Amino acid sequence: MKRPVTFFLDPISPYTYFACHLLSDLAKKHNLAVKCVPVLFAGLLTAHSNKGPAEIPAKRRHVFMDCTRNAQLMHLPFKMPPSHPFNPLLALRAMAAMEGHGADKQFHFVKHVVNSCWGQGVDISNAANLIHIADQCGVDGDKLITQTATQDAVKSKLRYNTDHAVEQGIFGVPTVKVDNELFWGSDRMHHVEAYLEGKLKVDHDAFEKMIAIPRTADRKEAKKHH
Amino acid sequence: MKRPVTFFLDPISPYTYFACHLLSDLAKKHNLAVKCVPVLFAGLLTAHSNKGPAEIPAKRRHVFMDCTRNAQLMHLPFKMPPSHPFNPLLALRAMAAMEGHGADKQFHFVKHVVNSCWGQGVDISNAANLIHIADQCGVDGDKLITQTATQDAVKSKLRYNTDHAVEQGIFGVPTVKVDNELFWGSDRMHHVEAYLEGKLKVDHDAFEKMIAIPRTADRKEAKKHH
Repeated sequence: MKRPVTFFLDPISPYTYFACHLLSDLAKKHNLAVKCVPVLFAGLLTAHSNKGPAEIPAKRRHVFMDCTRNAQLMHLPFKMPPSHPFNPLLALRAMAAMEGHGADKQFHFVKHVVNSCWGQGVDISNAANLIHIADQCGVDGDKLITQTATQDAVKSKLRYNTDHAVEQGIFGVPTVKVDNELFWGSDRMHHVEAYLEGKLKVDHDAFEKMIAIPRTADRKEAKKHH
Repeated sequence: MKRPVTFFLDPISPYTYFACHLLSDLAKKHNLAVKCVPVLFAGLLTAHSNKGPAEIPAKRRHVFMDCTRNAQLMHLPFKMPPSHPFNPLLALRAMAAMEGHGADKQFHFVKHVVNSCWGQGVDISNAANLIHIADQCGVDGDKLITQTATQDAVKSKLRYNTDHAVEQGIFGVPTVKVDNELFWGSDRMHHVEAYLEGKLKVDHDAFEKMIAIPRTADRKEAKKHH
């Protein structure tokens, strides 16, 4: 039987691109059933009073340099879409709407959207481009993008995904969840793999005690924003 | 001849602990001259209007789980100090003061302080503990901690380190700089190694063009804080 893992993603993050490739490989190797959960990264940031890398100029620059290096070392193409940050809502809703086609087809569509964006530089905020991508995945693109993805039920599904992710302690994308364990970042797939292989044994009671220590220094700026 | 690399660090980040171990190994393997630059992480955050992981509860929890996993996979002990965040100023100033003893002794002291904090759970905001650590490194601990580290020149050196790091585009710790390339995070030592081996070739002109694209979506919250 396939082992279920959940993949929380937003194509706005270029790391989702690397995660798609690595998680695909891991799914084959470890017989995983990948369930995609599209979430609005901006919603996670707002819920946690956090900022995204694209909102801090020096970090934004470093992220794209890091992705350029990752792509070289992984022998993958890496291209920027025409703008960034772009509006990911239609792409996210299309991904959410694909749930009706089953988890495998949904993951297949997610990978195509993300590869188009970061591997080929396609503008995935554009409806016509999303229709074309869906058609390539063997789905009726026009129906998916112009009809299903714009339904209120799909819009509220995406909001639910995001709110429920926050409740589970998710603050960033991509995040992989296996059992009750969260793994944040495309650079933590070796942790996911070690966990799947039973090589990571965390004593959760000891962990809770360990992190329940006092704070003896806090920035004034941080306090102000709380 | 040894190849110079710069190591920007603050012991407040548990990732500095993993970076110390990995960079030590890399230094031996690739004949590197490691120059430590202690910086105040809180100062980097303030300069970039950013928040640290310890300021976002869900992210703080994930960081320590991630460190627990890292330690298991790296076969290293991992212990929390008595409080976190703690005040790192005296430890940072002691590290800055160690510059007078030469780069090798300074890195040796940095590693001892960081290992004491995250490998043994020692309170490194405590002067007596820092004196003991310095003594173990063959330095006059009392002189270093109670006299040198409290001098105005050392205090302003730490401020200069932090301001100058910001000017160089550094936003987080640990960061390693080789030539003009920045590598952020203990999890990017494989990028440092690939760069040292000539396996990372980034066309900087093409990179600048690539990232100079428009933004077509921004969060209201992010704008508000700018």
